Amino acid sequence: MNPIDALLNPRSIAVIGASADPKKTSGLPVSYLIKHGFAGPIYPVNPKADEIQGLTCYPNVEALPEAPDVGLVLLNAKRSIDAVRGLAQLGCKAAVVLASGYAEAGEEGQDLQAQLKEAAGSMRILGPNTIGLVNLTAGIPLSASGALEVSELPAGSVAVVSQSGGILGALLSRAAGRGIGLSSLISTSNEVDLEVSDFVEYLIDDPSTKVIALYLESIRHPGRFREVALRAREAGKPLVVFKIGRSEAGASAASSHTGALAGEDRVYDAFFRELGVIRVNTFDEFLDVPAVLVAGRKLAGRRVAVLTSTGGAGTLIADSLGINGFETPAPDQATAEQLRALQGDTPTALDRNPIDVTLAGLQPDLLRQAIRILLASDSYDALIVIIGSSGLAMPDLVVGAISDSLGASDKPVLAYVSPYAPNTLQRLNRAAIPGFSSPESCSAVLEALYVTSRPLSAEGSLPSVPLPDVSGLPEGALDEVAAKRLFSAAGIAVPASRVVHTREEAEHAASEVGAPVVLKVLDANLLHKSDIGGVALHLNAETIGDRLEQMAHQVESHVGRRPEAYLVEVMVSGGHELILGANRDALGTAILLGAGGVTAELFKDTAIRLLPMQGGLTLEQAREMMQQLTTWPLLDGYRGAARRDTEALAQAIVNFSALMAALGDRVVTSEINPLFVMPEGQGVVAADAVLVLDEGRGEGSSHG
Amino acid sequence: MNPIDALLNPRSIAVIGASADPKKTSGLPVSYLIKHGFAGPIYPVNPKADEIQGLTCYPNVEALPEAPDVGLVLLNAKRSIDAVRGLAQLGCKAAVVLASGYAEAGEEGQDLQAQLKEAAGSMRILGPNTIGLVNLTAGIPLSASGALEVSELPAGSVAVVSQSGGILGALLSRAAGRGIGLSSLISTSNEVDLEVSDFVEYLIDDPSTKVIALYLESIRHPGRFREVALRAREAGKPLVVFKIGRSEAGASAASSHTGALAGEDRVYDAFFRELGVIRVNTFDEFLDVPAVLVAGRKLAGRRVAVLTSTGGAGTLIADSLGINGFETPAPDQATAEQLRALQGDTPTALDRNPIDVTLAGLQPDLLRQAIRILLASDSYDALIVIIGSSGLAMPDLVVGAISDSLGASDKPVLAYVSPYAPNTLQRLNRAAIPGFSSPESCSAVLEALYVTSRPLSAEGSLPSVPLPDVSGLPEGALDEVAAKRLFSAAGIAVPASRVVHTREEAEHAASEVGAPVVLKVLDANLLHKSDIGGVALHLNAETIGDRLEQMAHQVESHVGRRPEAYLVEVMVSGGHELILGANRDALGTAILLGAGGVTAELFKDTAIRLLPMQGGLTLEQAREMMQQLTTWPLLDGYRGAARRDTEALAQAIVNFSALMAALGDRVVTSEINPLFVMPEGQGVVAADAVLVLDEGRGEGSSHG
Repeated sequence: MNPIDALLNPRSIAVIGASADPKKTSGLPVSYLIKHGFAGPIYPVNPKADEIQGLTCYPNVEALPEAPDVGLVLLNAKRSIDAVRGLAQLGCKAAVVLASGYAEAGEEGQDLQAQLKEAAGSMRILGPNTIGLVNLTAGIPLSASGALEVSELPAGSVAVVSQSGGILGALLSRAAGRGIGLSSLISTSNEVDLEVSDFVEYLIDDPSTKVIALYLESIRHPGRFREVALRAREAGKPLVVFKIGRSEAGASAASSHTGALAGEDRVYDAFFRELGVIRVNTFDEFLDVPAVLVAGRKLAGRRVAVLTSTGGAGTLIADSLGINGFETPAPDQATAEQLRALQGDTPTALDRNPIDVTLAGLQPDLLRQAIRILLASDSYDALIVIIGSSGLAMPDLVVGAISDSLGASDKPVLAYVSPYAPNTLQRLNRAAIPGFSSPESCSAVLEALYVTSRPLSAEGSLPSVPLPDVSGLPEGALDEVAAKRLFSAAGIAVPASRVVHTREEAEHAASEVGAPVVLKVLDANLLHKSDIGGVALHLNAETIGDRLEQMAHQVESHVGRRPEAYLVEVMVSGGHELILGANRDALGTAILLGAGGVTAELFKDTAIRLLPMQGGLTLEQAREMMQQLTTWPLLDGYRGAARRDTEALAQAIVNFSALMAALGDRVVTSEINPLFVMPEGQGVVAADAVLVLDEGRGEGSSHG
Repeated sequence: MNPIDALLNPRSIAVIGASADPKKTSGLPVSYLIKHGFAGPIYPVNPKADEIQGLTCYPNVEALPEAPDVGLVLLNAKRSIDAVRGLAQLGCKAAVVLASGYAEAGEEGQDLQAQLKEAAGSMRILGPNTIGLVNLTAGIPLSASGALEVSELPAGSVAVVSQSGGILGALLSRAAGRGIGLSSLISTSNEVDLEVSDFVEYLIDDPSTKVIALYLESIRHPGRFREVALRAREAGKPLVVFKIGRSEAGASAASSHTGALAGEDRVYDAFFRELGVIRVNTFDEFLDVPAVLVAGRKLAGRRVAVLTSTGGAGTLIADSLGINGFETPAPDQATAEQLRALQGDTPTALDRNPIDVTLAGLQPDLLRQAIRILLASDSYDALIVIIGSSGLAMPDLVVGAISDSLGASDKPVLAYVSPYAPNTLQRLNRAAIPGFSSPESCSAVLEALYVTSRPLSAEGSLPSVPLPDVSGLPEGALDEVAAKRLFSAAGIAVPASRVVHTREEAEHAASEVGAPVVLKVLDANLLHKSDIGGVALHLNAETIGDRLEQMAHQVESHVGRRPEAYLVEVMVSGGHELILGANRDALGTAILLGAGGVTAELFKDTAIRLLPMQGGLTLEQAREMMQQLTTWPLLDGYRGAARRDTEALAQAIVNFSALMAALGDRVVTSEINPLFVMPEGQGVVAADAVLVLDEGRGEGSSHG
């Protein structure tokens, strides 16, 4: 038996530390199990009671008559450890540990958590610090959440897995209030053992679950998450994520420009987007979006018919759709004629959308026909039916009319309820018609539908990139020459250059490579050369000598020692300036392409991709990154300007990412800044290069 | 008697076209008046009935026993005109016309609307195409909205004026559902006579109204709106606006860069911001924000205490506050000590915020004390109390505990209800505690409070700007020389230049003004010179001759004629490029300052101000505009670069806007692009100039 299956569908349950007082928190789980009709044996364990709520009570775990499938442990942090050890020895499959005071509570707690893990041995653990889990499909609550006071657990097809325990009750209650059925609700919290990804993996195969909603604080094992997210996608089970911790400033001072530009939350954005995971931005959408995805309908395009019996609400919805990039075209002629026939003698303006069928709104049969006409129309990809005050007088008829018409088409159908009518919203959702009371939700769910209805970002095949041998590279920062040699070997062009040590050598080098040249201090330990006067442009054989002396003084005044070496390099001109970088992030290695220069920096115009598990990025992904930049038009012949060599840029992104992939988890940060994109046919040039390595993370990025 | 007073507080009402069938739409108003207990005489008018719902019915308006204060006209568009004429002749003060089929319905309807206006004479009209109005304070419904079926009209301090009739019922129902009391609800719709501003003006003096919420489609008379909005601000009655029509593309192709950059909706944004009007972006916020403003509390800063008995919801709220720029600092030592004393022996982590008082959440007395401690703390500017599932078990006690503590402080206090609990939200709002069920609403209302708690954007005094005489300027586009002469006379520096006609003159001019020079075609009819090859840079006396010939050919190939004149001008270098423009908009003349160049154009980095009724902008406003640009740091010495002459820039904005003000409504568009901002102490230079005038709008921008 899969231990997660044991947790969700236990045949027998021991409740360790159950209280005889059903009003105490530790009295709740047994009473909820009884209340919601758990059919198997329940074994309360409490040395101070013989019987709890009519059930035989056992003094300790060892006294249990059998190994229960699940042990629900309600003791405090310290005592839970012994109980868990006892359950493990008995052969129990999984334990749920509710106590707090573990890793979330400082050093001492971390210690206790390690002991808990050790005590469990091969038995699986949910928690600690969890509020438990609820299988709504089977009606089995393994939780102390007060939200279980409800008399019914409305079952449905949305599974919720949450890293926050506290939010679980609110979600259970809100879903019930909205008429959105859940299949199961799981709080993983401290994740000493079972984590969000384990449950996702299980739910992919759970026939009761169609959509998986995740409330996340952080992702412990990105590789594992990536793997199960892609499997969920393949299985046609959308993942919807609400991620908190959005406002945290970057934990540590970023060591590079790339790190500062990327930002933790934007890397999460990229991560989710690459996996086809829908990230919602408001708490309401965390239920709204799953409610609409459950219907399993695809949104083929962005043209929406709005059918209304109340003009004001129709305009409101159309306006919200419009600012979110949806279209509300007027009915085509054939559709308009069908609608007109429906209306009989009533003069109706059918040259517009929202389509106002004031009378039909009051006549369910006409409403039913209007819905069918609009769903059958080639002019629309989806339909929003607006329910006004008049519809509230006969909610069953209106809901029925929409419901009856659903089978006629597989286009998405939503309902917007204009007045305050929580019961109608409930009724709609229960009838599998996603119903909303905010115009913004309608747009948000359509956007989510649109995204899930499209293939994942172009995958293409991984090009083979000729890579240099990277096995012998030292830890720490490479100097510019070494970094450029590496990039150049990976197929990224660098300017002609010479390493020099004296003014004479510099003058000679300047004539050799040809003016204008750039003079730069060469020192692996000086990452921010230009801040300390270590870069000079527009030089030639005549001017470089004096400038070198001056630079020597300036750098010395900043860092206390005279530079030993310099780089004399051909100065690149006429290139469009970008930044291409890589940065180690909690989720993996983030590849960043950004607009260069100060203006673009202020706008943080960047595109981010996480390196996949194997290899670098594909050419298709590289092109997507370029086109994602707001400044993309400047590469693409904006206002008649010459096009840039964007194919060479795409290739450079591919090569750079392949090199980073080869370096693996040794990459701390790497950066080509500026990367000049030359006019079409003239390639790109890496005018500077940074690469900082360490010994690696010491652990794989997958599994735990 | 003020006619609006007559509409809201009529002593007698005639209902023209009343139906004897209370289920028909035309039967509803009389039945609603009776149901909600209207105390004065109601005169139904209908030639086909003697009595309606127990009231004497009159065959026509002429037969009425007295001139009613208000006539509610339920006839169709054509017949309403006669009824209105009759009411006006009788001496009725105001009529409400519900019929549609007027200006909203095309040409014929526009004609009918003009007839309606004429028939009313000096009698005031609400509508047509309105759903009417409701005075909730006095319980008088003059409307056919089905939302009036409710048994009670919950009165309160928020007045709603809507240009959409259809939305009125939804708002009435939603406010009641949320427990938000309204003072009155008015739908102005077609606004043939009375418009939104008239009602705002009335409501400023209405003692029942504390906040005025406006649902707008467009502003008919911006000058009048501006005037009443500023009076409302002075009177301390916040205006909250939800504006639809946000998604409409600019109605006409913009004739200038400035027009394209501004965009209608962004001009509305600027307009509202300047007037201190709170613009909300979601339909929910349209009630959320007034609900919190009604309390009249000021938000002095951005530090928020979050008091919770459920950890998960606290984190969620703190996260939402964080991404919206609010701070949630941990309690200072003194506050923490007071809280600790409260908790007795229970160990509680008080080094963080959200402040988790798990036990206090269940004990109203402790909750009351915790609230008082946090409100008294100097560390916080506002408090959010989170109500979890445990609080739902005893809503009155929790609501009471918060309510009791309100008097102890004038800081804002909000409640966030974590589970689904519409009744608790109602109860909170009725107890004057703004309650919300979405974390995003909490942040949005705090932002609105923060904005209304600050003074309007720096006003300063209008500087006197020496302006040229503009009375004799012709219609149409001025050529660059004429436009520059005008800007120069208004104190904005322009480069030295010469007008030339031949290559010889050009060569001579280039030596005179000094290389490098710019050569530009000079022709008032060619607004987009550079698109037709009419601009050349980096020239000198040697190169300019050939280049002029080449330009002549190029321009000729584009426009079919050889240019007659050219401008030879000193080429400006080392300046930071901006655009300064003015554009005629529906709301007045918009002054736009924007980042120049292509990159900035892609980001639409602009600041917009509407010209005030009198004169131009102040220096303070000009400085605010500069600082509002995302690229402001580039002017302000970003990353150690030299600061720009920002004071000269501010002065140029002031002078430009004063010149536009002097030109008044003759300005179609005007633009300095590029405007170069030189290093500190070196001023600004207008390198190009456009000014297009017409004969003016032919109407003042105020009143109607």
